[in-house]
Amino acid sequence: MNFSQQVETTLPLFEEQLNSIFYTPSGSPDGLYEPGRYLLSLGGKRLRPALTIWVAQHHGKAFNDAISAALAVELFHNFSLMHDDIMDEAPVRRGQPTVHLRNNLATGILSGDAMLVVAYQQLMKYPNPLCGVLTSHFLQTSLEVCEGQQWDMEFQERAMVSSTEYLQMIRFKTSVLLGEAARMGALVAGVSADLANTWYKFAVAAGLAFQIQDDLLDCFGDSTKTGKQSGGDILVNKKTLLTILAWENSNEDQKKDAQFIWSLPPSVEKIERTLAWYDATQAKQKTEAVRDQFLNEALKELSWIEGDTSLFKEMAHLFAHRDH
Amino acid sequence: MNFSQQVETTLPLFEEQLNSIFYTPSGSPDGLYEPGRYLLSLGGKRLRPALTIWVAQHHGKAFNDAISAALAVELFHNFSLMHDDIMDEAPVRRGQPTVHLRNNLATGILSGDAMLVVAYQQLMKYPNPLCGVLTSHFLQTSLEVCEGQQWDMEFQERAMVSSTEYLQMIRFKTSVLLGEAARMGALVAGVSADLANTWYKFAVAAGLAFQIQDDLLDCFGDSTKTGKQSGGDILVNKKTLLTILAWENSNEDQKKDAQFIWSLPPSVEKIERTLAWYDATQAKQKTEAVRDQFLNEALKELSWIEGDTSLFKEMAHLFAHRDH
Repeated sequence: MNFSQQVETTLPLFEEQLNSIFYTPSGSPDGLYEPGRYLLSLGGKRLRPALTIWVAQHHGKAFNDAISAALAVELFHNFSLMHDDIMDEAPVRRGQPTVHLRNNLATGILSGDAMLVVAYQQLMKYPNPLCGVLTSHFLQTSLEVCEGQQWDMEFQERAMVSSTEYLQMIRFKTSVLLGEAARMGALVAGVSADLANTWYKFAVAAGLAFQIQDDLLDCFGDSTKTGKQSGGDILVNKKTLLTILAWENSNEDQKKDAQFIWSLPPSVEKIERTLAWYDATQAKQKTEAVRDQFLNEALKELSWIEGDTSLFKEMAHLFAHRDH
Repeated sequence: MNFSQQVETTLPLFEEQLNSIFYTPSGSPDGLYEPGRYLLSLGGKRLRPALTIWVAQHHGKAFNDAISAALAVELFHNFSLMHDDIMDEAPVRRGQPTVHLRNNLATGILSGDAMLVVAYQQLMKYPNPLCGVLTSHFLQTSLEVCEGQQWDMEFQERAMVSSTEYLQMIRFKTSVLLGEAARMGALVAGVSADLANTWYKFAVAAGLAFQIQDDLLDCFGDSTKTGKQSGGDILVNKKTLLTILAWENSNEDQKKDAQFIWSLPPSVEKIERTLAWYDATQAKQKTEAVRDQFLNEALKELSWIEGDTSLFKEMAHLFAHRDH
């Protein structure tokens, strides 16, 4: 089966399980869990839990062996969305009001907290010592996700960050959870710690390629495919890898130009001048090169894994070269 | 050793361990952890971690065997303070600015999240299967604490709640964590599940007596000892067990009186009329009776436990009959 066939096979089964969470027994305050149901009902690509399930299946395990770990990953992801949307003052998530606007701030915080706890509870369904191994890894990854969000917020207050700092930030904020999703699939299948870590490294690298492609799509993507206005990041002076690499490859005159561009209000002129600056500094090519370096890193990790890994190869290529 | 000698022996050792958490290695964003250090530095009675340590010691274990579980409990407690202070819009905690006012809302949320994760990480230091048992229990208790906070917020929107609902709310919001603190001390000492649950029930009941005494002290306490203005709860129409029991024991005329009292602005008259209403309905005596019922329940649980339990007996009496 190719990637999209695999998605069509796995996702309906996963959604069914996901829907059964957060329907609370009588006696529990439903107001705590209903916002979780709402956020989950808004959908999403479910790439993380799918990865957990597919890696477990690759090593001969069934959907049912991986489902609890997959649920843990998806619930954690939605917990982080619920809290991040408050921190980022985001009014909309997947075209619908965010929880803190739909309900209120307190609900956004507390329902998010409960979702995090319920995520960890999924891992308790595995026997010892697997349960402890999964939980230890997942807690470390959780803390890294918090650190990534902290860096993201701190970087917004700074005039510029280095490409090294930026890559570390997106690694923690988004890629390590994808890595953990893959590693947990391997661990529930009972493979060696080394092999589980190879899966982790594969998915972290693929996740980095995914994130960098995000920056590229915002600027150069076809807006009829991405569904977003091209240059949205430029209009709000967002520090993407494109901007950072353009800055790092600018001479003094180009840096002065850049500072002038940032002072401009959102406008077509602002976008056009930025594109000219990217062009002069070869920012697009350099960003693509970093993206492809991570894609190659992912594929190299995959080459250590026995069996037919074509599904994962396709996934990595899609991550790096998707058009929406 | 009596209770206060035991506190003096245990707490300095505990504080030392607590202080070592959240000093992060270079490379981590300190902005994520510094608010945790700040909140922990504001102090607190540390009754929960002390209970964990004392129960473990009662069963022959050393301070070092219990410290990680004790840290987990105290870190969880401070996580919940950090988030509750946002939800309750509290400007002050232990005489100092709350984290979300000292830093900002996003920091209050994210540093709280990180603190919760770090709390669970403490439990990973125990070997399997103990690690899994502790974590399962602690996650269930965590969710109950969230449910308690949810009820508390929902009850504030309602005209009245029943005493049954109120007791369930304070049980979840505050007492189960004390219960878990005791149970974890027993579990790290390797006692039977039954005995560990007896410790849990002891501490939950003692915690309920503690909370009810809180309501009584706010109204009838000596303000030179409590450090709070007497009748503070009355001035803001807070639904305490006193008010709820007064309401449940009121005839129609008294209920009309009560509704008039609630419509009054904060004033000496409002306090005096409330006290007269409490008097007419014997609310104080009834509240004291419920408190003492929980104290007796705690002492009864304690009677099942072998060895010298005088420290815990003293603790339960202090909880129920403290004057500040």
